[in-house]
Amino acid sequence: MTFKYSNVYLNGTSTITGPYEAKGPFNKYYDKSYNDFYCGTKTWEQAESKMLVESVDTVLSKVMKVKNEVDLHISGDLLNQIVSTNYASATIGIPLIGIYSACSTSVLGLILGSNMLEAGQIKNCVVSVSSHNNGSEKQFRQPVEYGGPKRKTATFTVTGAASAYLSREKSPIKVESATIGKVVDLGVTDPYHMGAAMTPSAASTIYQHLKDTNRDISYYDLVLTGDLGVYGKKILADYLHQEYHIELRNYDDTACMIYDLEHQPVFAGGSGPACLPLVVYSYILERMKKHEIKRVLLVATGALLSPTMTNQKLSIPSVSHAISLEVNDDLS
Amino acid sequence: MTFKYSNVYLNGTSTITGPYEAKGPFNKYYDKSYNDFYCGTKTWEQAESKMLVESVDTVLSKVMKVKNEVDLHISGDLLNQIVSTNYASATIGIPLIGIYSACSTSVLGLILGSNMLEAGQIKNCVVSVSSHNNGSEKQFRQPVEYGGPKRKTATFTVTGAASAYLSREKSPIKVESATIGKVVDLGVTDPYHMGAAMTPSAASTIYQHLKDTNRDISYYDLVLTGDLGVYGKKILADYLHQEYHIELRNYDDTACMIYDLEHQPVFAGGSGPACLPLVVYSYILERMKKHEIKRVLLVATGALLSPTMTNQKLSIPSVSHAISLEVNDDLS
Repeated sequence: MTFKYSNVYLNGTSTITGPYEAKGPFNKYYDKSYNDFYCGTKTWEQAESKMLVESVDTVLSKVMKVKNEVDLHISGDLLNQIVSTNYASATIGIPLIGIYSACSTSVLGLILGSNMLEAGQIKNCVVSVSSHNNGSEKQFRQPVEYGGPKRKTATFTVTGAASAYLSREKSPIKVESATIGKVVDLGVTDPYHMGAAMTPSAASTIYQHLKDTNRDISYYDLVLTGDLGVYGKKILADYLHQEYHIELRNYDDTACMIYDLEHQPVFAGGSGPACLPLVVYSYILERMKKHEIKRVLLVATGALLSPTMTNQKLSIPSVSHAISLEVNDDLS
Repeated sequence: MTFKYSNVYLNGTSTITGPYEAKGPFNKYYDKSYNDFYCGTKTWEQAESKMLVESVDTVLSKVMKVKNEVDLHISGDLLNQIVSTNYASATIGIPLIGIYSACSTSVLGLILGSNMLEAGQIKNCVVSVSSHNNGSEKQFRQPVEYGGPKRKTATFTVTGAASAYLSREKSPIKVESATIGKVVDLGVTDPYHMGAAMTPSAASTIYQHLKDTNRDISYYDLVLTGDLGVYGKKILADYLHQEYHIELRNYDDTACMIYDLEHQPVFAGGSGPACLPLVVYSYILERMKKHEIKRVLLVATGALLSPTMTNQKLSIPSVSHAISLEVNDDLS
């Protein structure tokens, strides 16, 4: 399902990170980074919630708004019952749409907000996501203290929170179109190779987006998935070529960008809902504002697994959502 | 945040239940009930997912549509990572918006669909929810086999799935307006008394809805919360009176309706995302179609707890969303 927008703008963003992200290549772009996983709280979950609150406060201060001037907050995270979002929201106090779409949450949130803005149903909104490495490890894998070895196809959940403020007020970055994807399950059962599980839905959504907009992939200066990882990224290029005859050229994956893969112990790269927006809201928007790239297709990919279903030996469904951001030439 | 609609109709609904619901007062209205908790699958989670798929198939057959004619599926459930929804969606194959709002999920989904329909961004959608008693007990409380005693303020999670088909095609039931609520946390820490935790957000959303629509509560022939339970229902009436000077008269709570509270072992009543829509899509819509009631405000109340946060001794935030359904006099 594809939507076109004429009146939706990205007016501001914020990025709060943990210690590993601060040691990655985009450190200078982040608004704030913590050098420990607790961020001054007693638990990892509360730390994640705190970063989420801070990301909302930060973006609102950048666009010079206060919370009661904001119509909606759209937010989600990886924790069971999206508690990072829900506990943060009791502090934030903006009417909440809670969403869950694993690592595709950020783009799903941007689409929901953009639809309501395009229709004039709201005047503005904040769209947020968060994730926490240790909180996720504890929930999805093994006790962190266990220190079990991992396969090189595993990814490293990003610690951080990111928020975007959207409105109908013109700004240099325009939200141009978007595609909500279908859930696809081709039978991958390995929770340590989520790149493979997510590739079919990423390909399906890219194909649908290009078909619905009647575009060639070359329309975009950059196609950015998040987060397939080092191996998933290669699989996607092969799969799009073979199944859909689409040749990915100006392409990257945020899992492969957020860390220094040579020197940081992050396996196949970053993952988690915060990975893609931390890269986009820092480095990618800077490149767009400098007109180095003008049309970017973000394809957020979500592996919809849970330990419960993995223990039942079920395969891993996946969903991917896409959104097109463009430099607004009138204003930049 | 309140929205008004002029072009959104509820064209069909479906209800699939478990054994306890079939023994409740609305059995004759349900489309299908299972007499065991496995529904022919091997696990409770897979049973829930199966009911969700069946509820989508059932509503689509009622409105004589096939899946690829449907623009969007909006769905959520209580399981970690909303896996009931996500695994069902791999079979359903309609572009998915996954949401999490605990027991307020059904109304949040109806609002998201209604907004896009009102704007003409989609031509139709299916909005679903599900819950499963044993799946929830296992996840939120204790091993089911443990059989621990419970306090009378505890609720009994409903087993079932419910779907609604919405479009711009006129039908006897109109979606008239809706309010997305704020997350409220007044410090209740008892996970066995969720009615108390949810009351403040229910009251806040009812107040906001009446304020934004400039209405008195008497505008509605029925205000229906879901699910506060026997005790929460009384607290809400008191709280609305004391804090907001609103007198609830034509009021009920679906937790108190779905079971035979005298004879079934369900403590303070039903709960779970499926409770409210199972009551509304069966008994309440029948009453509306007979013109016994013409204006109904549904207030779905969600307790945003998780065992992780409860173990950290944190209080329980809550969110409630409201939607107004009206009999369309032109057509009925």
